[in-house]
Amino acid sequence: MTSVDIIKAPTNDPGDTSPVETVKAAGYSTARVIAIVGKTEGNGCVNDFSRTLSAAVWEPSLPADAVTVFSGGTEGVLTPHVSFVVADDTPHPGFDRGLVAAAGRTRTFAPQEIGRRTQAREVRDTVAGLMAALELAPEDVHLVLVKCPLLTSAKVAACRAMGAEPATSDTYESMAHSRRASSIGIALALGECAEDEVEPALAGTAEVWSSRASASSGAELDDCHVLVLGTSTRAANPLRAVHASMRDAIDVETVNGLLDQVRAQDGTVVQVFAKAEADPSGTLRGQRHTMLTDSDLQSTRHARAAVGGLLAGLVQDTAIYVSGGAESQGPPGGGSLVIVYRLPQP
Amino acid sequence: MTSVDIIKAPTNDPGDTSPVETVKAAGYSTARVIAIVGKTEGNGCVNDFSRTLSAAVWEPSLPADAVTVFSGGTEGVLTPHVSFVVADDTPHPGFDRGLVAAAGRTRTFAPQEIGRRTQAREVRDTVAGLMAALELAPEDVHLVLVKCPLLTSAKVAACRAMGAEPATSDTYESMAHSRRASSIGIALALGECAEDEVEPALAGTAEVWSSRASASSGAELDDCHVLVLGTSTRAANPLRAVHASMRDAIDVETVNGLLDQVRAQDGTVVQVFAKAEADPSGTLRGQRHTMLTDSDLQSTRHARAAVGGLLAGLVQDTAIYVSGGAESQGPPGGGSLVIVYRLPQP
Amino acid sequence: MTSVDIIKAPTNDPGDTSPVETVKAAGYSTARVIAIVGKTEGNGCVNDFSRTLSAAVWEPSLPADAVTVFSGGTEGVLTPHVSFVVADDTPHPGFDRGLVAAAGRTRTFAPQEIGRRTQAREVRDTVAGLMAALELAPEDVHLVLVKCPLLTSAKVAACRAMGAEPATSDTYESMAHSRRASSIGIALALGECAEDEVEPALAGTAEVWSSRASASSGAELDDCHVLVLGTSTRAANPLRAVHASMRDAIDVETVNGLLDQVRAQDGTVVQVFAKAEADPSGTLRGQRHTMLTDSDLQSTRHARAAVGGLLAGLVQDTAIYVSGGAESQGPPGGGSLVIVYRLPQP
Amino acid sequence: MTSVDIIKAPTNDPGDTSPVETVKAAGYSTARVIAIVGKTEGNGCVNDFSRTLSAAVWEPSLPADAVTVFSGGTEGVLTPHVSFVVADDTPHPGFDRGLVAAAGRTRTFAPQEIGRRTQAREVRDTVAGLMAALELAPEDVHLVLVKCPLLTSAKVAACRAMGAEPATSDTYESMAHSRRASSIGIALALGECAEDEVEPALAGTAEVWSSRASASSGAELDDCHVLVLGTSTRAANPLRAVHASMRDAIDVETVNGLLDQVRAQDGTVVQVFAKAEADPSGTLRGQRHTMLTDSDLQSTRHARAAVGGLLAGLVQDTAIYVSGGAESQGPPGGGSLVIVYRLPQP
Repeated sequence: MTSVDIIKAPTNDPGDTSPVETVKAAGYSTARVIAIVGKTEGNGCVNDFSRTLSAAVWEPSLPADAVTVFSGGTEGVLTPHVSFVVADDTPHPGFDRGLVAAAGRTRTFAPQEIGRRTQAREVRDTVAGLMAALELAPEDVHLVLVKCPLLTSAKVAACRAMGAEPATSDTYESMAHSRRASSIGIALALGECAEDEVEPALAGTAEVWSSRASASSGAELDDCHVLVLGTSTRAANPLRAVHASMRDAIDVETVNGLLDQVRAQDGTVVQVFAKAEADPSGTLRGQRHTMLTDSDLQSTRHARAAVGGLLAGLVQDTAIYVSGGAESQGPPGGGSLVIVYRLPQP
Repeated sequence: MTSVDIIKAPTNDPGDTSPVETVKAAGYSTARVIAIVGKTEGNGCVNDFSRTLSAAVWEPSLPADAVTVFSGGTEGVLTPHVSFVVADDTPHPGFDRGLVAAAGRTRTFAPQEIGRRTQAREVRDTVAGLMAALELAPEDVHLVLVKCPLLTSAKVAACRAMGAEPATSDTYESMAHSRRASSIGIALALGECAEDEVEPALAGTAEVWSSRASASSGAELDDCHVLVLGTSTRAANPLRAVHASMRDAIDVETVNGLLDQVRAQDGTVVQVFAKAEADPSGTLRGQRHTMLTDSDLQSTRHARAAVGGLLAGLVQDTAIYVSGGAESQGPPGGGSLVIVYRLPQP
Repeated sequence: MTSVDIIKAPTNDPGDTSPVETVKAAGYSTARVIAIVGKTEGNGCVNDFSRTLSAAVWEPSLPADAVTVFSGGTEGVLTPHVSFVVADDTPHPGFDRGLVAAAGRTRTFAPQEIGRRTQAREVRDTVAGLMAALELAPEDVHLVLVKCPLLTSAKVAACRAMGAEPATSDTYESMAHSRRASSIGIALALGECAEDEVEPALAGTAEVWSSRASASSGAELDDCHVLVLGTSTRAANPLRAVHASMRDAIDVETVNGLLDQVRAQDGTVVQVFAKAEADPSGTLRGQRHTMLTDSDLQSTRHARAAVGGLLAGLVQDTAIYVSGGAESQGPPGGGSLVIVYRLPQP
Repeated sequence: MTSVDIIKAPTNDPGDTSPVETVKAAGYSTARVIAIVGKTEGNGCVNDFSRTLSAAVWEPSLPADAVTVFSGGTEGVLTPHVSFVVADDTPHPGFDRGLVAAAGRTRTFAPQEIGRRTQAREVRDTVAGLMAALELAPEDVHLVLVKCPLLTSAKVAACRAMGAEPATSDTYESMAHSRRASSIGIALALGECAEDEVEPALAGTAEVWSSRASASSGAELDDCHVLVLGTSTRAANPLRAVHASMRDAIDVETVNGLLDQVRAQDGTVVQVFAKAEADPSGTLRGQRHTMLTDSDLQSTRHARAAVGGLLAGLVQDTAIYVSGGAESQGPPGGGSLVIVYRLPQP
């Protein structure tokens, strides 16, 4: 059970490690970092080497068991930044609970396992293990963040050379398969998906999702990085979180509903974690959108830009975590939304 | 002085003229169309042939003096659609004023005139003529919409073959020059720019703008198409408009300020006309954005997606007119915002 | 049996119909046009409205039974242009054979038929009918050009509303499915595919292809446009053609082999029709390429640019027809190559 | 005076340092590396972090005075790879001359110096210093490779905060300015540009170029990295080089002319270094190209894909160095071309 603080800092570019100074200025050593969660300014797709660069520059300076989660794509108004989840053992008198976190990794996946049942199960087990370590019941979990692998041309070829067939041979689509498998794993761990729903959920024929799942794919790793955030009465600190599912990309009501909860407690928003996607029907509230027919610009880029613009406006902050591709992370066309906030000193 | 109604309809693609049925269903003949203002699903940049296609399919069926204004780019949640400004001579008892409109064209421009003083002056004169025809004082004008030409490689070459130098040889940048010249012309006509500010304004060294200007460039025309919308006590209809400048791309306060005015009068939003751009400083409220360093995606596409996402959320409608590139159409990084709404029957 | 001439002219933009003057200058009325085959400067993908624009401006001025085949994408050095296949009844004494052509259309396809067996069969039947009309044996056919439909978001939704499942829900991928089905239809008609190979060929598990097939997809039509070109001793004109399959995107040997045949007869190249694609293995002669992992730029655009650069260099002409996506139109990573040339007066 | 060998190896991704094994297998320690010159699979434009990633992973393992030159963009058939220029003190009896190389850096540039006279002069001085160190006369130089900085939004802002005006505020265009300034510096050092031509050459009004200049810009550095390659009778090894200017993007004659020289000596091509660009006139041999009006895809990407396709075909190798943007590196629309080859054992 680790009580945590969250420190956020902008970056000058994906190779910029100067935010380490912000961590230190807040009174923490990098040895206390449990996870770094960043938005980098690549395309957020298969060939996004901004994520790889960030992972390469950060990993040597963080503890070996810390995880990195870099999500590419700061379309529109979004600001590249990093958020550190750090272990906070400062006493915070006056609080009866607090935000807690733990991070871990699954094993490495063979190419043919990506986007499939095995990935879902391994994520489930890792999440379950982290929840157990934190002594968190499912209802106390606010966010499970997963960074998961994708299929490159080389992995597709390696797969076939082994006589196996990958989940897809389309590299961009493999990102969606991987996010979906991870999210189903999260839903399993949180009791939001039954075992017999796994296959239809993976096939996209059963609508299974978790409003606390946030999965993003990348070529920079072969396993899954997992971060669990929850609130626990075993900790005492001023951080809290609320979560919900945006029903679609313009669901202002849900966003304002969460923000109202924060304001009702005099809270200050620390960070927003949102998933966004193009509604797979090609329409949004019955009106046509063009995100799925734009061959110049992947739909995840469209979705991040639009939902990022909305959320940045509503919270009046552009350094928020908006990630594209919300398969099983909310209803089709919607996505999970988690707001971490800080209570005033009592 | 022409009292007008506005009819909005979605399109299935840029070649779709089925919205003519919506016009007829509303009781209007296409002979009454003054202007058609549409959002088409191209990239909104130099090679956006969705605009050209829409102009090609619509122009034969509209009156010869009607103008077409097609703005490309429905990034994110935006819905391709058209709005018809139609002459409405129905009596609307109980109203003491109403929305009026007139449309016209400048002369054709030589390539070297695009983005320069001549364009600004011709736009000024056309706007002034339309205001006079409508008997509108500057303060009664809510929106001046201009569709203006750009420089293709062929126009740049033609220009040089004549021994003249174009405003720029970068085709994408020529769009910004043209929008700026048009907008300065609008500001001149509305008394928001002095004659001696024209040159520094064109050079971008004087901050001259109009919160009622909305200019968009395209390769599909060689002159400027101009539409003036205002409210007049010589007309009587239920349409009204409010306008303001968004200070930046997340200026929710200004948007809500206008929406509050609409709601205070029990109005129903008919259409939103907004301009959006990447803040030229590379930052937004002090935080870095990446719209100007993304070589894969032009900044106007980023800006439309983000501001479109915000506005669609705030007005709960995706079929709105959000256009990219707000040079002299608002403060740097901001843009003009006009909301046309309908009052209830008295 | 129609003896034909081919007239090629550059275009200023996709809406430019000035090439009609070139047709007239060559002594032909537009009433004699059998087909117009053009390269337009869009992205060649789902939202390429340059094709739609060209079809919209050309179709009213061509005979009702003429077909349009506009292929988007003039990446790199390629020049937008159109080629007219016109009926030529001029006597050409001294020639013992000549190029002949016929064009036709399949029926309209329901969305769920696109990319499937039905499309292949209908294309087969249309090609067979045109071959019969031309009295051409399979070995006399040099090129079968097909323009075929794709799946938009709206078609996917329409399909599902009917309770059917489309071949794919990915709009860009639907282009490949449609090209493949058309090409298998061509191969069937030419005796290059057995009936029992159709299903595995459609699934991509059997390597079936025709080096005379050239299929390109577009949102601008719901049926298939088909053009058959061959040489016949029933005609007498100076046009001839040679064809082969490029084995991969740098197969200079095959290109030079055909050009050597042309030169050996003192021929002048009239037009090149080539298909190009990213090798699906992710490698080319054992070396990695990145066309399939570039999420910013579709692989068909990469392939057209590269093969277009090579062919334009080898034939020293940039106004050639290079089309992307060579499924069943050559070996994987390769594509069909047809060179039409003109013999000197005897 | 350093006799050199060149070792080329493909990479699996921009973070892949496995090619170090190829260096070792060839009998060299990384301590002997003078320069690493690579093609990475980014967009080759402003936000190409694949270059930054490669620099980040390679620099720690190379000698402090070695330089890195990573050029982004492997469009079309091009294969990501690295070439090492290594000091080779093996005796090569039977050779009377050999390839020599030296590398160095200019000082760091202030943002307002980028793309201006100062940059040109500093490059000139560094090149001159390296030539002197190698005791090379201008006519013995075959290639001067420069990696130079660009202007990001942050650099533009920093510049203005200092009260200075940058060469341009368009980040993509700054790449061209920087390449041009570097190339003029090279031309100065090689005696191909007079001092009084510098300003008009920078302004693009004087046609000054060097067929031995190859400059590429990136955000990953603030100084210029410079590599000089030449042949010297003070060295003895089997490597030789030839160079020329491609007159345009389809100048097969020049390419074959160089290849003929190589073949005449029984040489084996080791590496090709080419620069490519869209002809600024918008035409190529009088025919229109669309590289400068494609707002979805930067012209440098088009040019690399097309010229890469041509050169890969002509040399039958996809792992070649083709870099985009040939300002002052060849005639407008053309670019420098250098072929390094290995003579057989005598």
